[in-house]
Amino acid sequence: MAGVEEFLWPVRVYYEDTDGGGVVYHANYLKFMERARTEWLRSLGFEQTELRTRDGILFVVHDMQIQFRKPARFNDELVVKSRLLKVGRSLLQFEQVILHGDVCMTEAVVDVVCIDAERFRPVSMPAAIKQAISSSLPKIQPIT
Amino acid sequence: MAGVEEFLWPVRVYYEDTDGGGVVYHANYLKFMERARTEWLRSLGFEQTELRTRDGILFVVHDMQIQFRKPARFNDELVVKSRLLKVGRSLLQFEQVILHGDVCMTEAVVDVVCIDAERFRPVSMPAAIKQAISSSLPKIQPIT
Amino acid sequence: MAGVEEFLWPVRVYYEDTDGGGVVYHANYLKFMERARTEWLRSLGFEQTELRTRDGILFVVHDMQIQFRKPARFNDELVVKSRLLKVGRSLLQFEQVILHGDVCMTEAVVDVVCIDAERFRPVSMPAAIKQAISSSLPKIQPIT
Amino acid sequence: MAGVEEFLWPVRVYYEDTDGGGVVYHANYLKFMERARTEWLRSLGFEQTELRTRDGILFVVHDMQIQFRKPARFNDELVVKSRLLKVGRSLLQFEQVILHGDVCMTEAVVDVVCIDAERFRPVSMPAAIKQAISSSLPKIQPIT
Repeated sequence: MAGVEEFLWPVRVYYEDTDGGGVVYHANYLKFMERARTEWLRSLGFEQTELRTRDGILFVVHDMQIQFRKPARFNDELVVKSRLLKVGRSLLQFEQVILHGDVCMTEAVVDVVCIDAERFRPVSMPAAIKQAISSSLPKIQPIT
Repeated sequence: MAGVEEFLWPVRVYYEDTDGGGVVYHANYLKFMERARTEWLRSLGFEQTELRTRDGILFVVHDMQIQFRKPARFNDELVVKSRLLKVGRSLLQFEQVILHGDVCMTEAVVDVVCIDAERFRPVSMPAAIKQAISSSLPKIQPIT
Repeated sequence: MAGVEEFLWPVRVYYEDTDGGGVVYHANYLKFMERARTEWLRSLGFEQTELRTRDGILFVVHDMQIQFRKPARFNDELVVKSRLLKVGRSLLQFEQVILHGDVCMTEAVVDVVCIDAERFRPVSMPAAIKQAISSSLPKIQPIT
Repeated sequence: MAGVEEFLWPVRVYYEDTDGGGVVYHANYLKFMERARTEWLRSLGFEQTELRTRDGILFVVHDMQIQFRKPARFNDELVVKSRLLKVGRSLLQFEQVILHGDVCMTEAVVDVVCIDAERFRPVSMPAAIKQAISSSLPKIQPIT
């Protein structure tokens, strides 16, 4: 956590991530972003395995606007910088930027929705998660 | 090709495409969409291997707005329906919808840019491609 | 089905399958082989979705010996040639060869085991599957 | 490095690694093993980007015997334990075990070959790599 508002997660580019163009395959940036969101949630004290078995919920990506600005390459050490833009009843909206040094390689706005793990329908996210978010991110106003 | 404006490409969901949530992993829809764009280009008579070695160009995704509406599952037979929205000097803008029967699972607007394969900078796409597009899609007005 | 003993399944190489070395990423050949086994089972009349929900079983890879002989490349049209070597109580042993034209790119011996979907333990495969295999492959002697 | 002979590399299981069976998709263990070999080489002071551009070589998997013993799951923290078995002119043979705590989930013997990056033919690996290996692994006798 670089500050109260940003969460940083490092990603090394391996061969598995690249394609025949010699650069990171575009869909794989979405994996990097998801790793960072998983680790952000873990940093707040929440394991998705427990959220699923105990609370019956999943967090899933519902909507994404993504710009692929520069190509990252094999062996690059990237950093995913994540920041919450909005918190709703079942919504977490993130801005996520993938950096190589100071250079932005890819950036996205990602809407993640809390759903019922059986019926795949939006549900309110657990109060404990909202509280943890409020504590860690004082400037984000939950929209309740 | 369902008509002059639409290109259909079938995709079967295998285990490799799913995740522990029991559904298609979100980043993998981007792979399905890229397969469809590759096959669309092939249907017009263009192989990307030749475009690269002979013309020194690549087509890469630059921008994407994507909505994940419903979860596709293991074994589903999907269809990717692709339609050109815009043609620019170096830009192809597609609308791509992934259908399961009549139901839209995922939809996206995808900006693909023609770049120099060495320098990774936008270049004009070959005239032959524009011509082939114009012939196959009479209602799309190239923006030249 | 090329004959009673061989099952052929075509695979086109897309960008998603390649890596920065310019060739198919080695782990992705395993995906191609699994697609072929899935389609072989389907060709016998069995859908793994039903096998799981109705019969409570999964087929999983237990053991694999694989040689990566030649590199397949973007855009190649490959064929996966699959042949059953052994059928046991819960075991299906396959020989799978990935061909580009007449050239063998990758070959493997793959042990697939029928397991209980909940407990992940080997169980006898359904009699109907063994029968279907016997009918389609008269020269394979089930080891019962 | 746990000792002179073993190299340990941690891997967290994310959604991208799992499949609809609820466990790690079998081909993805090969990715974990490759990450570990890449980091082992880096720990000896070699970057594959340099090996390629400066020395014109790649290390590729040629042969693999792999047993999938137990299913790893979403969120598991795994460790890849790698040990050199043989060093030849162009060959590195590894034993790689993927552990969850003390439990072996997957194990493999992997033959990696040093090849010319253009012609994809085996070549002698750089003397500096052999030296670094000899220094770090005194008990491995290079087969020269």
